[in-house]
Amino acid sequence: MRKIYLEDTPLREAQEQLKKRISFLPKIETIPTARALGRVTAEPVYAKVSMPNYHASAMDGIAVKAEKTYAAHEQNPVRLKHGMDYVEVDTGDPIPAPFDAVIMIEYVHQVDEQTVEILEPVAPWQHIRPIGEDVVVGEVIVPAHHKLRPVDLGALLAGGNLQVPVYRKPKVIIIPTGSELIPPSEHVAEGEIIEFNGTVFAAYLEEWGAEPVLHSIVKDDYATIREALRAAVQEADIVLLNAGSSAGREDYTVHVVEELGEVLTHGVATRPGKPVVVGIVEGKPVIGLPGYPVSAYLNLEWFARSLVQHYYGVMEQERQRIHATMGRRVVSVMGAEDFIRMTIGYIDGKYIANPLTRAAGVTMSMVRADGLLRIPPGDLGYEQGELAELELYRPLEQIHRTIVATGSQDLTMDVLDALLRRSGPDRFLVSSHVGSMGGIMAIQKGEAHIAGVHLFDEESGTYNLPFVEKYLRGKDIVLLQLVYRQQGWMVKKGNPLGIFTVVDLIRPDVTYINRQRGAGTRLLLDHLLKQEGIDREQIYGYSREAVSHLSVAAAVSGGTADVGLGIYSAAKAMGLDFLPVAEERYDLLMSGSFYRSKEGAQLLECIRSQNFVHEVERLGGYNCRDTGSIIYMSPPF
Amino acid sequence: MRKIYLEDTPLREAQEQLKKRISFLPKIETIPTARALGRVTAEPVYAKVSMPNYHASAMDGIAVKAEKTYAAHEQNPVRLKHGMDYVEVDTGDPIPAPFDAVIMIEYVHQVDEQTVEILEPVAPWQHIRPIGEDVVVGEVIVPAHHKLRPVDLGALLAGGNLQVPVYRKPKVIIIPTGSELIPPSEHVAEGEIIEFNGTVFAAYLEEWGAEPVLHSIVKDDYATIREALRAAVQEADIVLLNAGSSAGREDYTVHVVEELGEVLTHGVATRPGKPVVVGIVEGKPVIGLPGYPVSAYLNLEWFARSLVQHYYGVMEQERQRIHATMGRRVVSVMGAEDFIRMTIGYIDGKYIANPLTRAAGVTMSMVRADGLLRIPPGDLGYEQGELAELELYRPLEQIHRTIVATGSQDLTMDVLDALLRRSGPDRFLVSSHVGSMGGIMAIQKGEAHIAGVHLFDEESGTYNLPFVEKYLRGKDIVLLQLVYRQQGWMVKKGNPLGIFTVVDLIRPDVTYINRQRGAGTRLLLDHLLKQEGIDREQIYGYSREAVSHLSVAAAVSGGTADVGLGIYSAAKAMGLDFLPVAEERYDLLMSGSFYRSKEGAQLLECIRSQNFVHEVERLGGYNCRDTGSIIYMSPPF
Repeated sequence: MRKIYLEDTPLREAQEQLKKRISFLPKIETIPTARALGRVTAEPVYAKVSMPNYHASAMDGIAVKAEKTYAAHEQNPVRLKHGMDYVEVDTGDPIPAPFDAVIMIEYVHQVDEQTVEILEPVAPWQHIRPIGEDVVVGEVIVPAHHKLRPVDLGALLAGGNLQVPVYRKPKVIIIPTGSELIPPSEHVAEGEIIEFNGTVFAAYLEEWGAEPVLHSIVKDDYATIREALRAAVQEADIVLLNAGSSAGREDYTVHVVEELGEVLTHGVATRPGKPVVVGIVEGKPVIGLPGYPVSAYLNLEWFARSLVQHYYGVMEQERQRIHATMGRRVVSVMGAEDFIRMTIGYIDGKYIANPLTRAAGVTMSMVRADGLLRIPPGDLGYEQGELAELELYRPLEQIHRTIVATGSQDLTMDVLDALLRRSGPDRFLVSSHVGSMGGIMAIQKGEAHIAGVHLFDEESGTYNLPFVEKYLRGKDIVLLQLVYRQQGWMVKKGNPLGIFTVVDLIRPDVTYINRQRGAGTRLLLDHLLKQEGIDREQIYGYSREAVSHLSVAAAVSGGTADVGLGIYSAAKAMGLDFLPVAEERYDLLMSGSFYRSKEGAQLLECIRSQNFVHEVERLGGYNCRDTGSIIYMSPPF
Repeated sequence: MRKIYLEDTPLREAQEQLKKRISFLPKIETIPTARALGRVTAEPVYAKVSMPNYHASAMDGIAVKAEKTYAAHEQNPVRLKHGMDYVEVDTGDPIPAPFDAVIMIEYVHQVDEQTVEILEPVAPWQHIRPIGEDVVVGEVIVPAHHKLRPVDLGALLAGGNLQVPVYRKPKVIIIPTGSELIPPSEHVAEGEIIEFNGTVFAAYLEEWGAEPVLHSIVKDDYATIREALRAAVQEADIVLLNAGSSAGREDYTVHVVEELGEVLTHGVATRPGKPVVVGIVEGKPVIGLPGYPVSAYLNLEWFARSLVQHYYGVMEQERQRIHATMGRRVVSVMGAEDFIRMTIGYIDGKYIANPLTRAAGVTMSMVRADGLLRIPPGDLGYEQGELAELELYRPLEQIHRTIVATGSQDLTMDVLDALLRRSGPDRFLVSSHVGSMGGIMAIQKGEAHIAGVHLFDEESGTYNLPFVEKYLRGKDIVLLQLVYRQQGWMVKKGNPLGIFTVVDLIRPDVTYINRQRGAGTRLLLDHLLKQEGIDREQIYGYSREAVSHLSVAAAVSGGTADVGLGIYSAAKAMGLDFLPVAEERYDLLMSGSFYRSKEGAQLLECIRSQNFVHEVERLGGYNCRDTGSIIYMSPPF
């Protein structure tokens, strides 16, 4: 059918091989020092003038000849005459001959306009900045291969260096390829994909000190791609092709590079990130990056970033690393080096990390990631509770100040986050969605500060409290009323299939989409089925799981399902009709220690504010009649 | 004479007071997402389209109807017909109806052009990326007050956000004031100072996300400064005046701010950095920064940076902190918060920190600093050997890879550093100058990897080894021959005073400039004096100490001394005549553990390279006849 081959070259081997084969000869350009921030010096820079270039007063006071003061003491004031024995000087003024010391103004007693008196002797050169105190002619100000910081610019100018020799930025041409790609747009037809990787690559390259050039989109055509690459290597120091780096029918990168030059690597032993092409065309490195955003960005860092560093002869700052406790078991892909995006929470003095989706196509997982976990090829992974080292994507202080929310997903959590951030610069709320039962478990295991829960207990006919009593007995916790919300059937506009009650779900023409196990919404469905005596097996689609209200709505909107259960705001967002089924209580469960913390107080303040009620009610489908009241608080320990 | 007043307001109090009085109303601008890197969002941004917006194949393979595969197993291959039962799909392709699953190409056996065979069943929705897998319409992509990273731009575009609402950058007008200031130049007359603080401020502000505007230099004239400030507050969000913030005769900042607005603070309880003016004019914060670069940059960070953060409602990443052992005693200034620039070495697994000069005028101390030590007002400081927390100015990995050189200063150390950096991106050599004896002590205390020494022993008539034997007995060390170098009298061009031997130094018309205690050059002078039976007291200037060859040369060149002892290259750099006195041996002393380390091997390779010999001999005044040979190696332990 088509030729399938992809190597499993160890990442480091592929990187080393490329570096060994590429030697850049960067051009040097001499640019104004004032515009050289972040540029890399091509040579050591020496001072051309001394700073100061004269003996300067270091204080406000008077310049004197030190020997005229030697006799002074408290019982024997010495009088000095203006012009002859002293002159006034301010900080930075030259010391006129024959003076050789400065007395601070605080120790000078004015006798009359022309006379001062002093009570202490001074040593020669006291309070005088000698020539070259800051910078001496001939001194090295900055070495070669040095990335210029603001203060370096100051020292260069102080040393008379108005220009500075720096390496020209490496030009990186980014060629997006793919017939399905369209430039960013708000109107996307089926089968079209917005080209956004190029923008992300360009932004990263800019941060790393390169000069990115984003080529227009090239269709999936062998000859067109080849000619684009052939032209690019004439101009660029590095060329990136994206995508088409795998081994599919229309994956031309490897063939094009092979025809024009040499393929060094096709496929690295990493998950994600495997399908990369590393090659050389006319002496220029060419990287074929995969189409999936996560794979693409990881490979960009592994290959393009290290080429830029190689070009400049500098090492970039590595990301900070911390050790965190695994909140869940993290299993490795055998035989590959795993890179797993993780969230990190700082709960009761411990870092708790949990994996995000491993799907390489989910850009949002990179946006949400707090860190990256690397599992070497031989390792099996980590058990829950084990410590592992993570590379941080966010500053550690931000992680320290972040309120970790989990449990059931609800749009009011976004409102809370927005209000929190608006209330102060050091406040963050980060949500992950694991369903109500998952939320209870997270609080039990100390993996989150707060959890949204809406669990209906059939026996008592009430929400949440029976579950808290069952699973969190003896724990220090608080249950807070957040909102009442409407759950209902989400159906296509106009309800073409006429779905009104749970009984309609078993009709043969109706496809359902469910929520994941442990989700309160799924339990609500189960309760409704039980009331009507309907067997789950009768519902087509019961086993198909979506992990959020919006995903369910998206499935209905996209036509792969006819109905799902969810909240009003999700239906509204996707332009669906909504048929109310039940009002439920959506509470916030939190640990007692969080409730009593500063962050807890800030959150409560937001929840109880008029703004919160106002913005939640604007969403529709909510009622805030008991918002902020405490339903349960465990007795003090 | 003039009014003297400066408060000692605690820094935090001054910061809080300013923040409390300033509330920014930042304008919002909507800009193309592709150009929004580093900008701060003004609102939460929601997805406008789903990504993907259709069900897409997640693999290269064939799209099938899952139920048609249910019967397949190894003993019962199922055959599928092209077009009817399957179509070929590549990653990213839409799944045409009625298909609902994808089988990877690896599991498809081609029977003929129109028929494939499969051996395993597939579940519905296998290898299909559902609509919105990456981004779902209505989902929050980034919250408000979020500094946009490359990956955020990708997610925004994926969600159909071609534009993004961000805060306009705060405009910061920087007004340099001072009649002695001139724009950067290579020709500086006496009494002129190059204005470089403005460039440094602008660069920092750019890094912090502000829009700096550097005003032309304003003379020290009350009315001119006042009009410049009056105009600036009309346009800017923040105004910086530099300098004139102290309480001297021509320090107008406080008076100008008082006339046009309100002074909140004049003087903070810090050393350095005390003379700052913090005020408000027409609702705009005005910061009067001191003239000394170090004081200025610290105050810029304390006040301007925190204003920019306040404007955006974000917190910037704090600098990394480490604990380091104090290599020397560090004494605090009583009653003030001390900020001391420090070097940090990583020696035998320990961080060793030493203070740089405290002079607030030395820009180079900021360039050279690896970190900042803060001593709170009440504290007395740190004893040698005590641990203290430092804020890092350089990435920790760089500090780990840096070879710490100390001891006597010599220009060949700069050559070595340049060669090392050229040889690889992760190699640094950082020198500090404490004299030869200081170098021996540093090796003894484990505070440096290598030390340059040139100590003449009168008794044996040899260099260095007798001192090593005396002070480093029983220590694991290596003494390596680096260079022979000429020491000589440095005198003005043409030797106007006719200075030829040490006897000339006692002439009444001759002023000498000496080196600091423990410097080998000073010991050489003492040896010469002893040989001639001359008393130190007879030499005018014996007690005036400079800490480097270049500083001595600068003093002679500047006319405050007639002669000093030093090396040829320093005399050459300052355009002086040089009269050779003695050839001495300049050795490198190093710990055995460093000698045996990877870094030690890299250094040795550089020392023994042809490039080193070539570049050193080009400096003049050196001889490399024994360079790289080992003079002494302690027996193994």
